[in-house]
Amino acid sequence: MRGVVSSVDAANATALARMIDARPVLVDCRPARDALGLPERTVLHSGPPLGWDRASPPVRAAILCAIRYEGWAPDDAAGADLVARGDVRLATCHSFGAAGPMTGIVTASMPVFVVENRAAGNRAYSTINEGLGKVLRFGANDASVVERLGWLEREAGPLLGAALRQSGGLDLRALMAQALRMGDEMHQRNIAASSLLARLLLPQVARAAADTASIVRLADFLGGNDQFFLNLAMAAAKASCDPCLGIEGASLVATMARNGTAFGIRVAGLGDRWFTAPVNTPRGLYFPGFGADDANPDMGDSCIVETLGLGGFAMAASPAVAGFVGAGGLEQAMRVTEEMAEICLAEHPQFRIPTLDDRGTPLGIDIRKVVETGITPLINTGIAGKTPGTGQIGAGVVRAPLACFEQALEALAVAVAPARPGR
Amino acid sequence: MRGVVSSVDAANATALARMIDARPVLVDCRPARDALGLPERTVLHSGPPLGWDRASPPVRAAILCAIRYEGWAPDDAAGADLVARGDVRLATCHSFGAAGPMTGIVTASMPVFVVENRAAGNRAYSTINEGLGKVLRFGANDASVVERLGWLEREAGPLLGAALRQSGGLDLRALMAQALRMGDEMHQRNIAASSLLARLLLPQVARAAADTASIVRLADFLGGNDQFFLNLAMAAAKASCDPCLGIEGASLVATMARNGTAFGIRVAGLGDRWFTAPVNTPRGLYFPGFGADDANPDMGDSCIVETLGLGGFAMAASPAVAGFVGAGGLEQAMRVTEEMAEICLAEHPQFRIPTLDDRGTPLGIDIRKVVETGITPLINTGIAGKTPGTGQIGAGVVRAPLACFEQALEALAVAVAPARPGR
Repeated sequence: MRGVVSSVDAANATALARMIDARPVLVDCRPARDALGLPERTVLHSGPPLGWDRASPPVRAAILCAIRYEGWAPDDAAGADLVARGDVRLATCHSFGAAGPMTGIVTASMPVFVVENRAAGNRAYSTINEGLGKVLRFGANDASVVERLGWLEREAGPLLGAALRQSGGLDLRALMAQALRMGDEMHQRNIAASSLLARLLLPQVARAAADTASIVRLADFLGGNDQFFLNLAMAAAKASCDPCLGIEGASLVATMARNGTAFGIRVAGLGDRWFTAPVNTPRGLYFPGFGADDANPDMGDSCIVETLGLGGFAMAASPAVAGFVGAGGLEQAMRVTEEMAEICLAEHPQFRIPTLDDRGTPLGIDIRKVVETGITPLINTGIAGKTPGTGQIGAGVVRAPLACFEQALEALAVAVAPARPGR
Repeated sequence: MRGVVSSVDAANATALARMIDARPVLVDCRPARDALGLPERTVLHSGPPLGWDRASPPVRAAILCAIRYEGWAPDDAAGADLVARGDVRLATCHSFGAAGPMTGIVTASMPVFVVENRAAGNRAYSTINEGLGKVLRFGANDASVVERLGWLEREAGPLLGAALRQSGGLDLRALMAQALRMGDEMHQRNIAASSLLARLLLPQVARAAADTASIVRLADFLGGNDQFFLNLAMAAAKASCDPCLGIEGASLVATMARNGTAFGIRVAGLGDRWFTAPVNTPRGLYFPGFGADDANPDMGDSCIVETLGLGGFAMAASPAVAGFVGAGGLEQAMRVTEEMAEICLAEHPQFRIPTLDDRGTPLGIDIRKVVETGITPLINTGIAGKTPGTGQIGAGVVRAPLACFEQALEALAVAVAPARPGR
């Protein structure tokens, strides 16, 4: 038994080192069909695999809106028919190397950011954050949503791609470490990272642009979106966590994700297998006119940032976000980070929290610790309205369900058990 | 005596309300000759009034460099001759409505930012921050300094001015409150404010620009200068503090400034009178190759930000800066802010510190409290090399000398003493 434990520990050390050494660099922005090799008539969604019949209303609304945007069907009835007949296929973002916020919808024409992990050589992808309010990722689906997606495809994406290619790449780890010192936990709060990025990116955008008018439109878009960086934090986190998958025996969590129906995790030692449980509904603060009864159950691949020790895990860095937890304030924020440290194996040497005298963020969720303590990861999240077309109705926090960690631990126990025939 | 005290308190309440209610808005950037009505052959310097004979070497170097930049003399010997003969006149920035960092040099051709206090209607001005290293404000004086000043005059200033005029004005108080929540104290550390400003400003710059190349140059300049916002924080602070000058009986400090030789204060109840004492030399961290022996005594109008409760007073908001004080860390930073609160009358209702559970920054330095406690304002500052032409050699902290507060208190006692002939 001691041998098993020490081999798990050794495997975790390897996995942790890969997370820590990851060097996510933002190198490009290009259509998903090129970047991910995403086929036509395929819609990617967030979280673990999801059948159309089990999808929640905002996820369905976003899938059908994306089908209209791509021109595969003229209206939602025709779109639903395509999905039902299997003429439009659903797949997870993670299965194509992407991380998608909230509904997480990606189709072939959408431009995606390309983040290269220069330590391990792998890549991860995310769409361009659309801004707040009525946006596809929160299940909004009207003409304004499709129009914005069109502008991202025709102008913003190509311009960002050209700017990034000529930049030689932007070091996201350094930028994220800086933003963490500026009050961002990079899930609820991305204003520092978004501002730092805009300041780095706009000179390159101006170099790449053919005219001043296109710079104005993109600069206005960047200037009006405090959450612009979220999708990049997700791609950076996925690029940093993915190399841990497939390290035999490791009990480290390599992926956490939700699809509005189920919460799923993948564990470093168990490859591509998803362990799922029904997802919780976040509690938090609601926009005027909305309340807890209007909230859809939790969704999105965004909790890949918690998997890397940001978001709820880094709450102490972001006292402004702590208000969503309850009493709020710095002390409450510190307690959340301390609690998450109990289920983690290490601290991130680059991601440091000034309010904790530069201690690192808790890193490396160990499913053994989660099951042993009963402490499940706390995730900061946006809240989508459960009525299709509503969009975002608030922001709050949610806990991962314990059951998927328990299932994963059982599976890991089987996987690492010494094969002893006859005993 | 009780009557005198209560009239001082009432006067301070008026002064404090003006500081708090100030609404500094960045509205323009234009040449100092237009904005300040600055005559030719006049060189503005920081701090209280200073004769050429008492000026420290880096201040002299910067004055002579500005004379070359303006073309009033071909070399420094000829420039020194003009000053000695009175053909170039020296005056303080404050006497022309401006606040100048370090040497504080302003001449007619230099573009200055225009900050309008929309509560009281007054305006304040500052030059465009030149960046780090070999720059005029730190006493550097070579050809690269003059070349950069030329670009600011010909391209950056006019473009910033056009961008700001069409923007309708940028609310600096809101931006500063936000930056304070992001770890800036707005003296040593301005990366959040500079990034937020760049993100707000660049869309307007793109609108105002005639071609993409000029946007690239300005965006590069903004992107490479984490201290860009400092000069704007100074102009905003001056615009907020100036309306306090001339409130009879008020013991509030309305101005603090240094010129490399003397430290001076002005007090709300005592109008334009300067109270001065020899300035201290900052202690801090030095760039490689430099040490305490290379430091010039303290200089610059930048401590107008401490006068408004930022900089050293807001140290708790900026644990990263606390390293300059000594042991560093959040606890030390909080102690500095607590100490400064002892000499202040109030807390700023908009400028709040997340690490202190959103308490306001200490606001309204009372000369009575300074003299009573012996606690003098702590100022965060850059350190200039004392050898002319060196530029910046480090950054640290410095204390205001007690003597100027003592002199001011004596003068205030005379000013507020009831006139009782025959007694």
